[in-house]
Amino acid sequence: MAQVLRRLPHVHDDALLVGTETRDDAAVYRMGSAALVFTADFFAPVVDDPYDFGRIAATNALSDVYAMGGEPMVALNLLACPAKLLGPRVIARILRGGADACREAGATVGGGHSVEDPEPKFGLAVVGRVSPRALWRNVGARDGDRLLLTKPLGTGVITTAIKRRLARPAEIRAVTRVMSTLNRDAATALRSLGKAVHAVTDITGFGLLGHLFEMLDGSGVDATLTYSAMPIPAAARRLAALDCFAGGTRANLDSVRRRLALAPALRDDPHAALLLADAQTSGGLLAAVAPSALRRAQAALGAAGIEAAVIGELTTARRARPRVTVVP
Amino acid sequence: MAQVLRRLPHVHDDALLVGTETRDDAAVYRMGSAALVFTADFFAPVVDDPYDFGRIAATNALSDVYAMGGEPMVALNLLACPAKLLGPRVIARILRGGADACREAGATVGGGHSVEDPEPKFGLAVVGRVSPRALWRNVGARDGDRLLLTKPLGTGVITTAIKRRLARPAEIRAVTRVMSTLNRDAATALRSLGKAVHAVTDITGFGLLGHLFEMLDGSGVDATLTYSAMPIPAAARRLAALDCFAGGTRANLDSVRRRLALAPALRDDPHAALLLADAQTSGGLLAAVAPSALRRAQAALGAAGIEAAVIGELTTARRARPRVTVVP
Repeated sequence: MAQVLRRLPHVHDDALLVGTETRDDAAVYRMGSAALVFTADFFAPVVDDPYDFGRIAATNALSDVYAMGGEPMVALNLLACPAKLLGPRVIARILRGGADACREAGATVGGGHSVEDPEPKFGLAVVGRVSPRALWRNVGARDGDRLLLTKPLGTGVITTAIKRRLARPAEIRAVTRVMSTLNRDAATALRSLGKAVHAVTDITGFGLLGHLFEMLDGSGVDATLTYSAMPIPAAARRLAALDCFAGGTRANLDSVRRRLALAPALRDDPHAALLLADAQTSGGLLAAVAPSALRRAQAALGAAGIEAAVIGELTTARRARPRVTVVP
Repeated sequence: MAQVLRRLPHVHDDALLVGTETRDDAAVYRMGSAALVFTADFFAPVVDDPYDFGRIAATNALSDVYAMGGEPMVALNLLACPAKLLGPRVIARILRGGADACREAGATVGGGHSVEDPEPKFGLAVVGRVSPRALWRNVGARDGDRLLLTKPLGTGVITTAIKRRLARPAEIRAVTRVMSTLNRDAATALRSLGKAVHAVTDITGFGLLGHLFEMLDGSGVDATLTYSAMPIPAAARRLAALDCFAGGTRANLDSVRRRLALAPALRDDPHAALLLADAQTSGGLLAAVAPSALRRAQAALGAAGIEAAVIGELTTARRARPRVTVVP
């Protein structure tokens, strides 16, 4: 849709601090001395349990507010489902999962919209607040910055395996926990670093590479990623070997392949690039942090119980279109 | 979904001025001295032309903000569709229709969310602003109030006829114009009456009777409707005679039938009650106005080019559960 939107006439509104130009995570709209962060996201079930699905979908929608440096305030349920087929209990479980994520986020569910649909979908529209001075964008990363990632990768592989009945119960529990974890504490820890955090986004459907390229394109920097530093759980590697990649993941890789260089040692691994392109659900924050603040960032995230990985670093782009190099 | 939501634990948040309790048109959230109006709505195509569909769906979503007395500020596209099947041109037409409605409303499109779906759906999440003192609710109507309706009824009948290929081109054009008309000017005209407007809602999926009963139940008043005063276009009467009623309309009538009394002269008309229950898309505002302000209201609406119908009046409810009586 981003491509289609770019063809629409551009509407100039000084109050719109962040719109569609950089494919940022949410719209930001000035209101007095504060600003609103406004986002919407919904999708089909990624796990079988309705409560977990609701909680994950809501956590994923709320994440866009955290990725902009904001605090969620109020949310609306967005529900499309075959109401009679699912029945009121299942629907209530989905909504309760969403409501619990909102409560944990300090956001109030103010209502919602539902529509009859053969294929269930759930998510939220969310409004949060952010100080315009504390706003994070997915652009603004600089030469020398280190890349921090606050959640493991591989949720796309594992949820695809769930659909194919290939995931083990412990793997399902672990990935559910990851996808149900708010990016709130990660955002709070990163905010404590002030101006040393240059750009932030969250990793969702376009995968690590897709969202990283948005950051690079908007910032004019190349990235060098360290494959061995990637937080890829054993379950994701096991299920990648069973080729549990979603169609979206292959499309993600296709769209960046020409700007991606794998070190020779990685070229024999048929899954390395796909794992980096894996379409994530409710993924972590990706932050570009000044190297001088890296230790403080790791300490702040660690104190919040978050194992953040230092997955690479940025350098001034050597061509008009930035590139990603992956080293072992 | 309203029934399911009522079973969820109630979240208390002083900033949530309007939540889910009264099935109001949108959530209202205090932010400093102002308040946000927050709503989301999306649905499947009601007309064949993609531009018109987008414009109608957006007009319908924006209407919730007007129904609360607010002004739309920023909107996000909510799109679910089979992207390859529709192709980028059709999708762009839908989005352009939505964008044009937003521009007319003075709202900026700040982005959106799209998801692959075999059955197309489009709509908006919208954030507007309202002064808490100028906020309209769907409750607060009083004994003696007159009911004003600012758009014709029958959009459900006619759009059902479009799906069945029974509507004539001129009928399609006329209903498209009605559904594409913002409730902005109607709201502006009603706001000029100040405190004489006691309750406002907009007429959408639950039909005139469904939304009226929400007003009555929250206000403790009965309604007497004048059937001959109803703005029912000839096209709607013609197509009602061909039984072009949607399933939702029959469900609307079933859910209120026990509290609805038709005068004997109307009982022979098999379509009278169904036309009053007709599920509307992007319907008009229904306002409860003090009788002393009725002439001023009609004059203000007329000056804005709106033919508002005086469709009934309200009296203190005689039973615990309010009732509607329809006289010829």
